[in-house]
Amino acid sequence: MTSTVADLGRAARTAAADLAVRTRAEKDAALHAMADALVANAPAIIERNAADVERARETGTAEAMIDRLRLDEARIDGMAGGLRQVAGLPDPVGEVVRGYTLPNGLQVSQRRVPLGVVGIIYEARPNVTADAAGLALKSGNAVLLKGSSSAAASNEAIVGVLARAVEAAGLPGAAVQLVPGGREQAKELMRARGIVDVLIPRGGAGLIRSVVEESTVPVIETGVGNCHVYVDADADLAMALQILLNAKTQRPSVCNAAETLLVHAGVAADFLPTALTALRDAGVTVHGDERVRGYDDTVVPATDDDWAAEYLSLDLAAAVVDSLDDAVAHIRRWGSGHTEAIVTGSLAASRRFAATTDSAAVMVNASTRFTDGEQLGFGAEIGISTQKLHARGPMGLPELTTTTYVVTGDGHVRG
Amino acid sequence: MTSTVADLGRAARTAAADLAVRTRAEKDAALHAMADALVANAPAIIERNAADVERARETGTAEAMIDRLRLDEARIDGMAGGLRQVAGLPDPVGEVVRGYTLPNGLQVSQRRVPLGVVGIIYEARPNVTADAAGLALKSGNAVLLKGSSSAAASNEAIVGVLARAVEAAGLPGAAVQLVPGGREQAKELMRARGIVDVLIPRGGAGLIRSVVEESTVPVIETGVGNCHVYVDADADLAMALQILLNAKTQRPSVCNAAETLLVHAGVAADFLPTALTALRDAGVTVHGDERVRGYDDTVVPATDDDWAAEYLSLDLAAAVVDSLDDAVAHIRRWGSGHTEAIVTGSLAASRRFAATTDSAAVMVNASTRFTDGEQLGFGAEIGISTQKLHARGPMGLPELTTTTYVVTGDGHVRG
Repeated sequence: MTSTVADLGRAARTAAADLAVRTRAEKDAALHAMADALVANAPAIIERNAADVERARETGTAEAMIDRLRLDEARIDGMAGGLRQVAGLPDPVGEVVRGYTLPNGLQVSQRRVPLGVVGIIYEARPNVTADAAGLALKSGNAVLLKGSSSAAASNEAIVGVLARAVEAAGLPGAAVQLVPGGREQAKELMRARGIVDVLIPRGGAGLIRSVVEESTVPVIETGVGNCHVYVDADADLAMALQILLNAKTQRPSVCNAAETLLVHAGVAADFLPTALTALRDAGVTVHGDERVRGYDDTVVPATDDDWAAEYLSLDLAAAVVDSLDDAVAHIRRWGSGHTEAIVTGSLAASRRFAATTDSAAVMVNASTRFTDGEQLGFGAEIGISTQKLHARGPMGLPELTTTTYVVTGDGHVRG
Repeated sequence: MTSTVADLGRAARTAAADLAVRTRAEKDAALHAMADALVANAPAIIERNAADVERARETGTAEAMIDRLRLDEARIDGMAGGLRQVAGLPDPVGEVVRGYTLPNGLQVSQRRVPLGVVGIIYEARPNVTADAAGLALKSGNAVLLKGSSSAAASNEAIVGVLARAVEAAGLPGAAVQLVPGGREQAKELMRARGIVDVLIPRGGAGLIRSVVEESTVPVIETGVGNCHVYVDADADLAMALQILLNAKTQRPSVCNAAETLLVHAGVAADFLPTALTALRDAGVTVHGDERVRGYDDTVVPATDDDWAAEYLSLDLAAAVVDSLDDAVAHIRRWGSGHTEAIVTGSLAASRRFAATTDSAAVMVNASTRFTDGEQLGFGAEIGISTQKLHARGPMGLPELTTTTYVVTGDGHVRG
């Protein structure tokens, strides 16, 4: 490779080798310097961001998207606060995951070490730039950031400020680099096997699918959530309604929002009339199977597309099932392996549901919205993995590391 | 997909859902039944194996390869013994990796669960068939085995015996299935994303490269080892020679054998004359840089191909380096990230070497040959990962699992 991406990648590898041996104190000092620099340079960043916002307006971008793109002082303070929060988290590097002494006296220690060079491909929101840079640096990784072209000026300004701050703090500036250009450069990043150790796409289903399919670099698949709420025969129905409404309506646009309701036939007649009314009052359009439609003729008929949908809107698919096992079979067939909730008073039902749904997270008598790094106490989150290799569920700092076995002897050889 | 592989895959997924909830006792009983069945059916297996051996002979296969293919009663007893040993290992499924209660009372538990369907693509040795089936079953996974066509009759006989034993023990027979056919079926297995959860290639560098490049299923890369022995300025030179000879000659055909020797300039004059003589006496051909050749004119000049080579033979590349950091730079440039050994009496040198080489395993004053699941006390090994995602170094039973977060509340919703 002789491209820009390859050059950036080589600089990142050199930076990663340096970062890998830095202490927590050095990395935390750099994170605080990055936070201070963002605040000090807020006017310049906001000016560059205004250019992105203007361009978005000219090209007719929807107002909701423009709002996600826009930076002001409060949002830059928020980014700085995020970096300071990451500085306060424990350093995963050096943690001994397993350690023991073998009968022959060899001392074995499996230790966390940085992954090396992490690539992040993400969509419009420029705050991801600072978040990802902070998490990567804290875990000792160099990061290659490929943001969307709609935020190019904002990202360039933010990465410039961050890299200079890292350098001023005595760490390599190439620890944080922006990959310029568009789709072609993104493809180069996906093909940079041997230079980039892992790629994490953050964004919509289309972005994630294209990265998974085109990448030769190992990918951690994130974020698509077709989450289910199952109301069991033994559910407290008031609790079920509260959880359902929270999971569906508290923030419908995110991956841990509920998309499908499954109700045990034994409680359908007691639960559905109240639930369907409450959902309608909350502005939710329900796409139901025949049995659900029997309780409310404003329910839209559901098709297979509805069972598979990640709506990310005030829509909800709903079906009545004859048993917990039927609910699990529905989830295994149509779900995306993100989060499933069961509402039940039965210990046996909660055990069986947790053991058989095959998802990254199972909520027992709690909202699907808790599948989130901050909510689970990780302090920060790089994304939510819906794949089974390496990391599953919310990914915090330890998920940005790998391990090395260090085996110490005094001349041990194999006989 | 409507192919054979897709049909086998669907049966495997159904079997995996069943296996995931089986107890250790049930799985261990099945493993013992599998072992007993192999011994009881040894004559039939040996008869089918004879057909493979005859075909290999007819096609002019090398005698060493034929030896690896051949089964006799002792080897079948060995396979049975391996299955019984796996039955004796702890069950990784259900292990709580992290667990805590959040300030709001939510109880969080991250638990090991099976991966689901594991595909193994491997070369000639039919004992891998029983090993892989046993490890997959113990960790609650269904396995799709794609052996080489040269061992087709042997593998068919072994898998038939194992699947019937699993079924007789009350577990689903589709937990252990052979993928018939050749290269086309192997490709289908590599493309079975959504059906197969992970693919593990076991074999030579060519096989592994083709699986990594062609697969859309997540792959765990295994086994290529360009391992280094670095003799530090502070080394005990007698210890260094013992470790070097063991690492290079005890079993040169395996991935954890040493392929390159790096000697600190400060001890080169004391170490190399003796070492080069001892290597020659052991039948080793040394490919040296100019400084190494200065000590012995029978040393062959080394090229870049030698620094990159995984010889798997009695060949060794050798160079003199001016510092530990130069040794590390050489390893980072040319190594495969498998195992590097340092021989030193210096604590500082051992710390720096372990922190900077970026390999799956670092041996301090011990032979590279210890990077091995059995040697490290795992009891069994599915392969040695040289990638950074999911598993790095020898993989035992826990590496054949993923995790699920189970979060339990009593009506918790997000505010």
